[in-house]
Amino acid sequence: MHPIDSETLIHHLQWRYATKKFDPAAKIPAAHWTTLEHALRLTPSSFGLQPWKFVIVTNPAVRAELRKAAYNQTQITDASHLVVFTMNKDLGPADVERFIAHIAKVRGVKPEALEGYKQSILASVGRPREQVEAWAARQVYIALGNFLTSAALLGIDACPMEGFEPPKFNQILGLDKQGYSAVVLATAGYRAADDPYAKLAKVRFEPEDVIVHVG
Amino acid sequence: MHPIDSETLIHHLQWRYATKKFDPAAKIPAAHWTTLEHALRLTPSSFGLQPWKFVIVTNPAVRAELRKAAYNQTQITDASHLVVFTMNKDLGPADVERFIAHIAKVRGVKPEALEGYKQSILASVGRPREQVEAWAARQVYIALGNFLTSAALLGIDACPMEGFEPPKFNQILGLDKQGYSAVVLATAGYRAADDPYAKLAKVRFEPEDVIVHVG
Repeated sequence: MHPIDSETLIHHLQWRYATKKFDPAAKIPAAHWTTLEHALRLTPSSFGLQPWKFVIVTNPAVRAELRKAAYNQTQITDASHLVVFTMNKDLGPADVERFIAHIAKVRGVKPEALEGYKQSILASVGRPREQVEAWAARQVYIALGNFLTSAALLGIDACPMEGFEPPKFNQILGLDKQGYSAVVLATAGYRAADDPYAKLAKVRFEPEDVIVHVG
Repeated sequence: MHPIDSETLIHHLQWRYATKKFDPAAKIPAAHWTTLEHALRLTPSSFGLQPWKFVIVTNPAVRAELRKAAYNQTQITDASHLVVFTMNKDLGPADVERFIAHIAKVRGVKPEALEGYKQSILASVGRPREQVEAWAARQVYIALGNFLTSAALLGIDACPMEGFEPPKFNQILGLDKQGYSAVVLATAGYRAADDPYAKLAKVRFEPEDVIVHVG
């Protein structure tokens, strides 16, 4: 299969924007949504550890509750889909064991052959809790970046959202009981024809202000 | 311009892997690299604030120095390009003023019209330093996610790397003097024909283990 060309990539990254007003009637077709879930699942992470769950909320009543915990932003209820990107708050040895067992199964190797790798990961998750949590949260943002780029390339609008109350989201979605915590959100769907933000020029610093060459 | 299809997206996300051994003779063509720099620059961030610089290191002597500060990993010297993703360590009111002035210029509006937006951003960068730094670091990981997906779609191999000593990188690249700090790396180029990691099955948890539907 051929790679895409530069024009296609840049066109879609230019086309995307943080959609403020979605068309509530426009739903992402199931096949496309399945692709985005698959893309999320393929997100790279440190050690391949995947310290996350992606919670896809389509239930309107739950979305209405969550909107109250997100400064009443309309995207929460009006977008086709809401993804709550969560991290494993209790990341620890049991997760590492589960991961190593999964590698062994998928690759048909003995877990003992992965002992050195396991020890490296155990050392990483054995750091002070605040470091481990910060690390897990950063991995979740790789998934966010992958999701936003993937959606744009599929012609699907999205809005990344940090403006919400994680404790309330955790409570409404029952995440705290599972040891997960909401980190960041993305809503996805199709822009409303009258979203004024769709017409604004994209603002990025000049190349020389953000790209440094050490050649 | 047409969106890409689901098969193209998933194929390339499956194709990519954390390349451990690059072909040192294989260089990314200039036009493709320019596209990746452009993609980096188009990365979304909270408020659109872009609290980052992307340092592209191609100088072999500098790469050799950096490799010593990255546990001697061969990708640092053998990949076509090395990107050091850095964050603005001193993110504060001056950056917000610069950003607001840039929006006003690009969109042809008066800075006064952006006063409410400016106050929101100032409140965000006025939080305790460790919170602001953690937040800036997470934004940088959106860029990492965007970069890895973009590279894969262009048929370019990459390896995200957290295993390095940021203080040494900051010193070698003179970042501390500029108020920036290395957060994460990516090397990019083309896999060596004999990289054994290229043949390993990709390990991802099952959909039901990472995707939760609240429908």
